[in-house]
Amino acid sequence: MARSGVDRVSASRVLRTAQVLAVGSELLGTTRLDTNSLFITDKLSSLGIIVRSKTVVGDDRDTITDHCAQALARVDLVVLTGGLGPTDDDLTRDAVALVTGLPLEEDPTITETIRGRFERRGMRMPEINRRQAMVLRGATVLDNPNGTAPGQFLEHQGRVLILLPGPPRELRPMLNSLCEGSLKERTADERIYRTSLFITGRSESHVEETVQPIYSRWREETPPIETTILAAPGQVELHMILSSSNGAAATARLRAASGELAAALGRHVFSTDGRSMEDVVGTLLLERGLTISAAESCTGGLMMTRLTDIAGSSAYVLGGVVCYSNEMKRDVLKVAESDLRDHGAVSEPVAVALAEQVKSIAGADIGVSITGIAGPGGGSPQKPVGTVVIAVVDSSNVARVRTFQFIGDRAQVRFQASQAALEMVRRQLVYNDPISN
Amino acid sequence: MARSGVDRVSASRVLRTAQVLAVGSELLGTTRLDTNSLFITDKLSSLGIIVRSKTVVGDDRDTITDHCAQALARVDLVVLTGGLGPTDDDLTRDAVALVTGLPLEEDPTITETIRGRFERRGMRMPEINRRQAMVLRGATVLDNPNGTAPGQFLEHQGRVLILLPGPPRELRPMLNSLCEGSLKERTADERIYRTSLFITGRSESHVEETVQPIYSRWREETPPIETTILAAPGQVELHMILSSSNGAAATARLRAASGELAAALGRHVFSTDGRSMEDVVGTLLLERGLTISAAESCTGGLMMTRLTDIAGSSAYVLGGVVCYSNEMKRDVLKVAESDLRDHGAVSEPVAVALAEQVKSIAGADIGVSITGIAGPGGGSPQKPVGTVVIAVVDSSNVARVRTFQFIGDRAQVRFQASQAALEMVRRQLVYNDPISN
Repeated sequence: MARSGVDRVSASRVLRTAQVLAVGSELLGTTRLDTNSLFITDKLSSLGIIVRSKTVVGDDRDTITDHCAQALARVDLVVLTGGLGPTDDDLTRDAVALVTGLPLEEDPTITETIRGRFERRGMRMPEINRRQAMVLRGATVLDNPNGTAPGQFLEHQGRVLILLPGPPRELRPMLNSLCEGSLKERTADERIYRTSLFITGRSESHVEETVQPIYSRWREETPPIETTILAAPGQVELHMILSSSNGAAATARLRAASGELAAALGRHVFSTDGRSMEDVVGTLLLERGLTISAAESCTGGLMMTRLTDIAGSSAYVLGGVVCYSNEMKRDVLKVAESDLRDHGAVSEPVAVALAEQVKSIAGADIGVSITGIAGPGGGSPQKPVGTVVIAVVDSSNVARVRTFQFIGDRAQVRFQASQAALEMVRRQLVYNDPISN
Repeated sequence: MARSGVDRVSASRVLRTAQVLAVGSELLGTTRLDTNSLFITDKLSSLGIIVRSKTVVGDDRDTITDHCAQALARVDLVVLTGGLGPTDDDLTRDAVALVTGLPLEEDPTITETIRGRFERRGMRMPEINRRQAMVLRGATVLDNPNGTAPGQFLEHQGRVLILLPGPPRELRPMLNSLCEGSLKERTADERIYRTSLFITGRSESHVEETVQPIYSRWREETPPIETTILAAPGQVELHMILSSSNGAAATARLRAASGELAAALGRHVFSTDGRSMEDVVGTLLLERGLTISAAESCTGGLMMTRLTDIAGSSAYVLGGVVCYSNEMKRDVLKVAESDLRDHGAVSEPVAVALAEQVKSIAGADIGVSITGIAGPGGGSPQKPVGTVVIAVVDSSNVARVRTFQFIGDRAQVRFQASQAALEMVRRQLVYNDPISN
């Protein structure tokens, strides 16, 4: 079988590029997104096939036909999802027939399979379901154990078209078997390798200025490493992608590249394997056998919510206090009335007192506090919206505190505050110093 | 101004169809979806402009150019999002220049605005940011108060191109003003009207069974009301859509339709205007002048995070305790050791004690508690993963408690638990009864 697979590669075109075409008016509304494309991209990229673009079209024959024809002129593989149902709105088969000029022919085996599915449930097959048995001449039928609509695999003028049903539980097993069989046989030995670095506390432009001189060289090397920089909430992400037929060499090269960028960016790199900040901090706490507690004001519990998003976090998160009101700060967390009065709730003395108290109340190794002005109201000339004070008290009861000025709307200020607090904890655990750059 | 707007409609082509082109390699990966298109579709459809298809393309000049040229041949309006940043990867401006044949020219006013943004934060503008000041000849510059990249609005050979930045908080206000101005002037009289009902505590199929006999009639009426049912985390959404040139009649008809469905669904409807659960509960608390506090175990602060997502929530959220460890439940919230031992932390007696104590500690009118097993570990035959106990203590100190069995992964169980707790508070405030159906 492996031998036959190799033969077929030499006979057919090797698939390198793909386009996904999701068919369905419901995917063009205001509430639903095409999520199948994430799975398809993942599966194809594991075979070294790059998805160049993905399109959502409504149940309109002309629009589907138009996009499908243009996709065939652009890429080696077109994956169509949806529009394989039995109704008049299900137009994917018809559109592909128009584009390729191939006739649709009823496959009586499929009709009988569909009829059987209905009969096993004590129902008569509606006549419209015969539409689902219409197969493009020359196409291979893909079984669908989870639904009525079979898929189709078609080679046409050196390109490949795949028609898959829209429901994820029908589409996924079908694509999984194609990736083990017909698709795998048509790919090059080349595979795609990826790695990433996540950075916090630096803007996208500053990261770009630091790393651009390094990664720009890689584009000239063979094979090139493609580097993408992406600003996400509270972090900047660097993604490195390499296409290679030598897995060990590719992995070693990406590791060296990642190491070079990480060295240039220093302590601002918090993740080198795609893990989130809460996951990285959680693992550090677990490894060191330390527990954590937090007193959160402006973030309203967001930092603890993020830490406890991670399964198994009860091993190191003890809990804490959401001290949204000044009374909670004073009565539960024993902040001195005079500190609240003289310095205000958003101040370094109050932040330190909150972190010390919550650590003591929870009996934790580490205490964190976040107090600030998330906006849109509550700002003043001295403390504008976005002012956030964060304190970390370590296991030797040393308190360190820092005042931040975040930019953005309420949700962004809150997220950045939770991210900065987690980053201070990470710095404390890794460098024994939560503050210096 | 209105008069001039009418004139311009007669002078320019009326915009009826659109395509969205989202630019960014990160949107072609396996983790991120283009969510801007939902907002764009909503805004355009309110002007009667139909989105025929939407495409995601990577940061590749040829692919962007290719798709953009084909879109211009297909629809009246092309909306491009993303790719307006300062780096070499940001290619939207260049691609549109290629497609239209129009030169890019630096607008010194924009350069100075960007420089000013950096200087106000005490930073020097990196030279690469000058790329963001490059404007297509003849385009109108769209101000971006929330970022460095301005948008562009271009009429070209009877079509319209709009270039918008990718971050939603930059894109949204820009598109909002276009929909009040340049875009509105170029649309037909027909508008699309929408309304929605959000339901919790009922499955999608139960909602469908209840409402299908009602909404199926509306499809036969002129003009028809299209009804879509959508399962979202912790809620089911019913969306009703109507296309009409008579705004008053359309609004009245949708209001009556929404009322009919709401009557059939009873107390399970929590929102009739698209507002989230935390927003609805916050408004009720504000209107009644009541304050709230919460003791959260398995949700780790998620309910309080959601309540404090709403601006102005400090008027009614006092705070609370994240009692992840049993010691926090015992020492801070004074739950009897015997209750923890005899009933377990996930039990109705413990939930009631937690809600009563947090209400008392915070000095709040309402106390809520959530204790449960979010998984993946920690389940037992008696209390499997997904078991969550929620208690609400009202302002007369009457405690009511309910045990739920949620289905799903850790994140789904946690979200449903926070949703059910907020729903119990809403029922308490509206019906003085947090529990009965």
